[in-house]
Amino acid sequence: MNNPIIIAIDAMGGDNSPNKIIEGISIHSKKSLKVQYKIFGNQNLIDPLIKKYNLQSDRFTISHTDKIVENEDTALVAAKRGKKTSLWLAIESLKNDEAHAIVSAGNTGALFLISKLNLKMIDNIDKPALSALWPSKRGMNVVLDLGANIECSSKNLVDFSIMGSALLKALYENVKPNVALLNIGSEELKGNAMIKDTYQILNEKKYQLFDFNGYIEGNNIMEGDVNVIVADGFTGNIALKTAEGTSNFIISELKKALSSNIIGKLSSLLNFKNLQKFKNKLDPRLYNGAILLGLSKPVIKSHGSTDSIGFANSLKVCEQTIRGKLIEQIKENIR
Amino acid sequence: MNNPIIIAIDAMGGDNSPNKIIEGISIHSKKSLKVQYKIFGNQNLIDPLIKKYNLQSDRFTISHTDKIVENEDTALVAAKRGKKTSLWLAIESLKNDEAHAIVSAGNTGALFLISKLNLKMIDNIDKPALSALWPSKRGMNVVLDLGANIECSSKNLVDFSIMGSALLKALYENVKPNVALLNIGSEELKGNAMIKDTYQILNEKKYQLFDFNGYIEGNNIMEGDVNVIVADGFTGNIALKTAEGTSNFIISELKKALSSNIIGKLSSLLNFKNLQKFKNKLDPRLYNGAILLGLSKPVIKSHGSTDSIGFANSLKVCEQTIRGKLIEQIKENIR
Repeated sequence: MNNPIIIAIDAMGGDNSPNKIIEGISIHSKKSLKVQYKIFGNQNLIDPLIKKYNLQSDRFTISHTDKIVENEDTALVAAKRGKKTSLWLAIESLKNDEAHAIVSAGNTGALFLISKLNLKMIDNIDKPALSALWPSKRGMNVVLDLGANIECSSKNLVDFSIMGSALLKALYENVKPNVALLNIGSEELKGNAMIKDTYQILNEKKYQLFDFNGYIEGNNIMEGDVNVIVADGFTGNIALKTAEGTSNFIISELKKALSSNIIGKLSSLLNFKNLQKFKNKLDPRLYNGAILLGLSKPVIKSHGSTDSIGFANSLKVCEQTIRGKLIEQIKENIR
Repeated sequence: MNNPIIIAIDAMGGDNSPNKIIEGISIHSKKSLKVQYKIFGNQNLIDPLIKKYNLQSDRFTISHTDKIVENEDTALVAAKRGKKTSLWLAIESLKNDEAHAIVSAGNTGALFLISKLNLKMIDNIDKPALSALWPSKRGMNVVLDLGANIECSSKNLVDFSIMGSALLKALYENVKPNVALLNIGSEELKGNAMIKDTYQILNEKKYQLFDFNGYIEGNNIMEGDVNVIVADGFTGNIALKTAEGTSNFIISELKKALSSNIIGKLSSLLNFKNLQKFKNKLDPRLYNGAILLGLSKPVIKSHGSTDSIGFANSLKVCEQTIRGKLIEQIKENIR
């Protein structure tokens, strides 16, 4: 791809924005020289940050608006705020083919609703799904749906399998997707009727894009035997959040143990580099950037509470989905 | 309670049984002087272990049988093996009021089905639920249902709230149960219709036994703000297993980091005691013993792969449910 990649950015969403957004762009722009940033938001707030973080003038444009979607807005209220909010304008630029992907660290429901209002669904896909990266012992997994759809049909889960596999391929060109359905037993007999139907369909039809590995239980998600994990949005969200909570709990217990006395503190200091490596591997900023799949353009959600490093990573996800031809791969395989 | 507590034990289920079972009884018997053990299994295998682990002759009886339920049996096949298996006989002794609780480390489905065939349900409860202990930042949580019922009604979830609260009270006399429903958003609007109905019922009716705290998301399960977490069996199982997998993943990453070079190894050695404390807090053996709630007697499931320390802990759970009058507390509150 020789033409520059253009990312539309809602600069006003999430904690500590637009500061972290502009700093995040600055971080990303130094690593990715062929990306252009279309920034939507309040120019009065953004201009000084552009100077502060030394953003090169030929790498970005700013479209000024002082209207923003609030974090507390329901999706409907956000949509009713109209077409002049930074979020709406950013998404509209995709609709008008002025950008290749959109990212926002703001209101999730609003991002989804306004995206759906403006961008077409890919043919033959009924529901968009929210997917994210999840570390495993052997690399990275794609997990979806993480909450876009509370109730799903087996047709939806089959679509999710294809879209999740296409995402994995777009992000990691040389990895063969291995799909599994998140369920409560690895035996064929367990689970509800919808999951069993999906199993039958995926097991009978052979897909070029991915191998199908049957069911997976929650305790094996991070083993790395499969790398695309498919669930309805309720189940996927429960799994994601529980993993997050467990991780926070363990890390806080570990910190307590390692700092409970002087020997603990000293030896942790001695062991600083190793602990740092450990911390880095689990750093949620490295996995920041959830992808709404099923729309005709990549829509990326950055965590609202992440910082500039996390936001830079969601820009990397935008770039990878475009370079990896995510949408084209979904279209090719969805028929 | 002055009369001794009698625990019926299927000695033949799970990995490395009856060895770990008899050793576990020996460990427990030294701490709990007023407990009697009714052991069901192959006397030829058990007798030498009784000697090996020095079990006092006035603390136990053995009922011999050479029939056992296999781990691979479906529940139905296990039930059809008939009334002479160690599992069936152990459960039957509860039915005949010869014991107060039953524990098995064997086949879960068989334990549930044969228990349901032999023991009555508590009046007004439609479905039994599987519950377990789960550590939090502030103490211990009870979580249920962990997989006994894939589909649940709001009536079931209300029952689970009462039963889980009664269990928490039986185990920790001075703790006030705080119930929350596991859901994907803390706002009242999210979740499926069944969960919303349950919310309405629990919110309107006031219960003496517990406070109702609304919804909880997976990432907050271990914060300790609530201590009884209620879900349908599918959702609860996904959460439990995902927490288990996440915990294993993090511990394995931590081990890698701490042993990747000589400095790591040395300082971990220096920090041994602190790391040990950390390890102990997360030791799954300490939480071993899941409780099937809703039947007229306590039915305890030990993890099949646990060792004698874990099994001793499931005996402690048996004892606590009896001393804490679990069944009586459920009956009093279920009306």
